[in-house]
Amino acid sequence: MTAIGVNSPVTDAEVFAAHEGGKLSVGVTTAFHDSRALSIAYTPGVATVSTAIARDPGLADRYTWAGRLVVVVTDGTAVLGLGDVGPAAALPVMEGKAALLKEFGGLNAIPLVLDTTDVDEIVETLVRLRPSYGAVSLEDVAAPRCFELEDRLVQALDCPVMHDDQHGTAIAVLAALRNACAVVGRAVTRQRVVVSGAGAAGVACARILLAAGVTDVTVLDSRGILVPGRAHMNQAKAALAGATNPRGLRGGLAGALRGADVFVGVSSSTVPEELIASMAPGAIVFALSNPTPEIRPEVAGRYAAVVGTGGSDHPNQIINTLASPGIYRGALDAGARWITEGMKLAAADAIAEVAAGDLAADRIVPHSLDPRVMPAVASAVARAALEDGALERDRPDACRLSPGTSLSY
Amino acid sequence: MTAIGVNSPVTDAEVFAAHEGGKLSVGVTTAFHDSRALSIAYTPGVATVSTAIARDPGLADRYTWAGRLVVVVTDGTAVLGLGDVGPAAALPVMEGKAALLKEFGGLNAIPLVLDTTDVDEIVETLVRLRPSYGAVSLEDVAAPRCFELEDRLVQALDCPVMHDDQHGTAIAVLAALRNACAVVGRAVTRQRVVVSGAGAAGVACARILLAAGVTDVTVLDSRGILVPGRAHMNQAKAALAGATNPRGLRGGLAGALRGADVFVGVSSSTVPEELIASMAPGAIVFALSNPTPEIRPEVAGRYAAVVGTGGSDHPNQIINTLASPGIYRGALDAGARWITEGMKLAAADAIAEVAAGDLAADRIVPHSLDPRVMPAVASAVARAALEDGALERDRPDACRLSPGTSLSY
Repeated sequence: MTAIGVNSPVTDAEVFAAHEGGKLSVGVTTAFHDSRALSIAYTPGVATVSTAIARDPGLADRYTWAGRLVVVVTDGTAVLGLGDVGPAAALPVMEGKAALLKEFGGLNAIPLVLDTTDVDEIVETLVRLRPSYGAVSLEDVAAPRCFELEDRLVQALDCPVMHDDQHGTAIAVLAALRNACAVVGRAVTRQRVVVSGAGAAGVACARILLAAGVTDVTVLDSRGILVPGRAHMNQAKAALAGATNPRGLRGGLAGALRGADVFVGVSSSTVPEELIASMAPGAIVFALSNPTPEIRPEVAGRYAAVVGTGGSDHPNQIINTLASPGIYRGALDAGARWITEGMKLAAADAIAEVAAGDLAADRIVPHSLDPRVMPAVASAVARAALEDGALERDRPDACRLSPGTSLSY
Repeated sequence: MTAIGVNSPVTDAEVFAAHEGGKLSVGVTTAFHDSRALSIAYTPGVATVSTAIARDPGLADRYTWAGRLVVVVTDGTAVLGLGDVGPAAALPVMEGKAALLKEFGGLNAIPLVLDTTDVDEIVETLVRLRPSYGAVSLEDVAAPRCFELEDRLVQALDCPVMHDDQHGTAIAVLAALRNACAVVGRAVTRQRVVVSGAGAAGVACARILLAAGVTDVTVLDSRGILVPGRAHMNQAKAALAGATNPRGLRGGLAGALRGADVFVGVSSSTVPEELIASMAPGAIVFALSNPTPEIRPEVAGRYAAVVGTGGSDHPNQIINTLASPGIYRGALDAGARWITEGMKLAAADAIAEVAAGDLAADRIVPHSLDPRVMPAVASAVARAALEDGALERDRPDACRLSPGTSLSY
């Protein structure tokens, strides 16, 4: 039995039944029912289309599904909270991610799970397959390899690439923080923020907060606060150590949280009640570990003004699915060749804006199923792509919109 | 304007309109509409399924789509009659092949087009992606590389792999020949057969005819009859030269066709009328080049008892789509780990059998859209897989049926 909070309990039998045969299927969108239809959609008609694409490769975006196909890619090394379960066991999760992109983003997506954890080999594989797809959603790759892998893929591929566990989460956190600050009447940029966890999500949360102008961010891993020169830091942590912790704190979470305004937990650890009690008055607590938050929200609520979690069983569910469908949809609609920081910040603003009309301490983010979120994010991301020049890359077949083109959802 | 014979003319505009946005889509087969559904199909429920697969990898075949997913793979080097147009221009054709597998085989299929023509790299790529799919349909790879590539993939992958341009065509030719011989009252094995063309289809046609017991097969490429020691022969041709041409003919098509019983044209060349006239009485002519047959069927019909082509605009359309959907369906239904010669021969018999009840010189094969074909082929292929031990490979998670298991379609 898997406990699911406010909903009626879900049994394992129900879960397995829902996964029987997988969760995806391929559909055919063109008629194949008679000889004439076949002669249009298949031979000899299809030769006309192939010939046209051979002459002008940019036409592939128009006359095939590839230009708007998202490949959901993993090596299965950091699947949910399960860890390194391998590519086959990662497949049900990747099918779920593909299904979410379809259901919430209206995009075709397929899982490609890789039986290698070598960064060079994963990049090489996706480069070889490049004509087959239009965007890469990197998922559930263990840190710190995920940072190098994402950087390498962005360099190697002329299409949108995003590691969802990093940026989807970070964007949702920034959106939630904007609205939480609005609720308590404080400026986002003036917050003292503590990020507990320096894996994929933690590093990306810290980075986006810095990009959004927050100046006092302190990041901790399981060994304590990241400070320059500390032992046991990978490249991503070392870079963050140099850009965060302006007050030069040292030690563990107790010292970091004392007097802090915001706690962002993405660590799979637990936080004692007294540490939350030591935060500044009107604190904001995002305990995002899933399925078990770093601190129970009822307990955090005794001290904090705003509390959010990663689960659907409490108010303020802060999850990457608020961000990613709209990001891919907007990026592909705009013909973006990559995903810029500006596009991520615009996505966070758009998510925050959807909830802004009805803001309260228990309504800082839209519900994960709110149908207004994807169009708002997609539209903002597409605009930001145009403004940031994300359509400009060395590829002659770029599908380009003029700046100012209206995109409606 | 693309001429399509008996159907009303098809315009290029119609063709392009039918290809707008591609011909495939991804569908979601499990509910994702509310929080409870999400907690079953996605987190936290999906973790139960991933954990189960991590413990027993064989369960991936049951709880993901991968075990029954066909990847349609090409490097774009021999696309239709267009030649080496590259992977992007090959995509519309590969989408068409995937659509045919869905429409006629009931199987999910996706195109993977590769931006490399290196055999090692293609094999390596598909090995890395192995947990993502259940079968490989290799398409439109130029000869002779296609022979090595198929062999290497069969060795490297523990799942059905078939180069459709070779075996789909060869199986349809053998089926047609069985019924043509029944029409003229002769034994298949006693025919003098000339195969014109030693590319993918020609080599496979010659091989399956030999496997079916035809003893007098002569094969020609653009330089003439394949004979042992001849110059300009690749490995596949050299092997065929040693196994064919029992009467030691030398020279070109004129000498080969004189007195021959059967002509199989898979060469993209033309055959003069007088050569067809020189064949034995009651000859069988399969002029399969597409869109232009080696000889016009009206002309061949002046001399031959039975004429077939590759096009839908004449009777007796002999095409690979009669074979491949049922082969993949039967192989996957049986849990076959590879495709044996016996499975190919069984497919040919099944195709022939569908047409046998209503046999005539202009009805030697079923119509390409005949709904009886796929189930008949799939059932025969699944049975042959069990008989041939195609389920036995060194993989602990094989999805196995006992011999004698009934498979209904």
